[in-house]
Amino acid sequence: MSQPERFSRVALIGLGLINSSLARVLREKTPETEIVGCARSQATLDTSMALGFVDRVTLDPAEAVAGCDLVVLGTPVGTFAPLAAQIGPHLAAGAILTDVGSVKGAVISALSPHLPAGVHLVPGHPVAGTEHSGPEAGFAELFDGRWCILTPPPHTDARAVERIAALWRMAGMRVERMDVEHHDVVLAITSHLPHLIAYNIVGTVTDLEEETRQEVFKYAAAGFRDFTRIASSDPVMWRDIFLNNRGAVLEMLGRFTEDLSALQRAVRRGDGDYLETLFTRTRAIRRGVIEAKQV
Amino acid sequence: MSQPERFSRVALIGLGLINSSLARVLREKTPETEIVGCARSQATLDTSMALGFVDRVTLDPAEAVAGCDLVVLGTPVGTFAPLAAQIGPHLAAGAILTDVGSVKGAVISALSPHLPAGVHLVPGHPVAGTEHSGPEAGFAELFDGRWCILTPPPHTDARAVERIAALWRMAGMRVERMDVEHHDVVLAITSHLPHLIAYNIVGTVTDLEEETRQEVFKYAAAGFRDFTRIASSDPVMWRDIFLNNRGAVLEMLGRFTEDLSALQRAVRRGDGDYLETLFTRTRAIRRGVIEAKQV
Repeated sequence: MSQPERFSRVALIGLGLINSSLARVLREKTPETEIVGCARSQATLDTSMALGFVDRVTLDPAEAVAGCDLVVLGTPVGTFAPLAAQIGPHLAAGAILTDVGSVKGAVISALSPHLPAGVHLVPGHPVAGTEHSGPEAGFAELFDGRWCILTPPPHTDARAVERIAALWRMAGMRVERMDVEHHDVVLAITSHLPHLIAYNIVGTVTDLEEETRQEVFKYAAAGFRDFTRIASSDPVMWRDIFLNNRGAVLEMLGRFTEDLSALQRAVRRGDGDYLETLFTRTRAIRRGVIEAKQV
Repeated sequence: MSQPERFSRVALIGLGLINSSLARVLREKTPETEIVGCARSQATLDTSMALGFVDRVTLDPAEAVAGCDLVVLGTPVGTFAPLAAQIGPHLAAGAILTDVGSVKGAVISALSPHLPAGVHLVPGHPVAGTEHSGPEAGFAELFDGRWCILTPPPHTDARAVERIAALWRMAGMRVERMDVEHHDVVLAITSHLPHLIAYNIVGTVTDLEEETRQEVFKYAAAGFRDFTRIASSDPVMWRDIFLNNRGAVLEMLGRFTEDLSALQRAVRRGDGDYLETLFTRTRAIRRGVIEAKQV
């Protein structure tokens, strides 16, 4: 396949961490691409213009997508259905619509009904992020060495898929195609369950009386602080992820709580062998993550 | 109170992360202090001598403590009772015995019965660490800006307490005295429960079939990797912590599982308000940790 052509006009709907990082990549690698930014608040638009990573901004998604050959949805996935209804009639023939949402099954269901014929839907998930949000939080190197998962429905135009793959490779990512259901299970394990657990433990601590809470901050370096980082991720984005990947999340949570009951029993009974065996197994897993260069 | 005198001969029982880091501090700050290293394996002793942070080494704890004015226990807390029985008769009059264990109630019970009159027990907990262990893992800056908690029993010699406080301040720590039961509750929250949860979630993942497991490594950056770091901490050390702080750990775990049930219910019912409210509260907690300079 020949080198996919670059995009001439890109609409970024939502100017948070991911889309504002992607904009910085485009600025750097394909300065000829015109970037149209769209967000719900004028403040976000103003900040984005001031930071210089968009050429034009608008509060109106329909206006943003007009004449674009690429549209990237980077808002919480709960907004996708109404957004698609709004922009659908304004998408140019041959345009590609992609997204950066952390769930994919629900996203395809939300978007597909609203797309006119001739528009290519290539759902994507750049697996990268920090706990920070907003246009100031973005940076071009965010994607470096991370994986991007594409979950195009069967019969999606191969050239459209390749153009989106090339976009993320340009950002430094390794790109993989995955079946949509499989994506949602794998991400439930690697991302959604860990976030749910982190939110829960930090929530448990916030309920402790004020005096102990101050001490919790002081001694957070003993382990708690790592959870607070994860649990400071964007609340609305994560609300929407859990609401849109319920089945897989609840399945993984079920396994987690079963295992936790067994572990609790071992602690209560003073079963040191059980604990040591588990902790030795989990230590080995760390090596797997290091070897996969995902530390 | 006048400046506490420095120690002339220190026995470090156990040469893991904490004691080997403390040895490096002593080398740097009080080079006149003689450091005697003791461990269970000759390999650890050889490594420690080669790294140069001990003056002498021995496999025999009783030999190590002879003539020392300070003894620091830095082995898993489950070893403390037999160790104390072994070294008790050999401790010099006026010597100070301290430790670096992450639980304190059980440590005092384990050590006290074996100490001759005239030996001062000053239990301590430098709240610092990494997921690495062993004599190579240590470094002098480990303690910088972290808190050290001392839990001396009532009527402990004030001068002995002050000398241990001065030792940790010399290592860069901020020192606080705490009631022993309170210590064990606060650490159950900030450290023991987070570790237990991290061990559990990583364990759940290791049980998944091999194919998914490889993908878990690839996409670990999405959240899971932070748990693998915590869950790679020393298995025996952590086994002993849970066995020796059961009451407080089970109490905190009880609160955690109650909260998790409520969260699970919210996900199942699609209660977005519940999720968003929780996630907004937990985000604020991160600010508390940052303000306490424990990031």
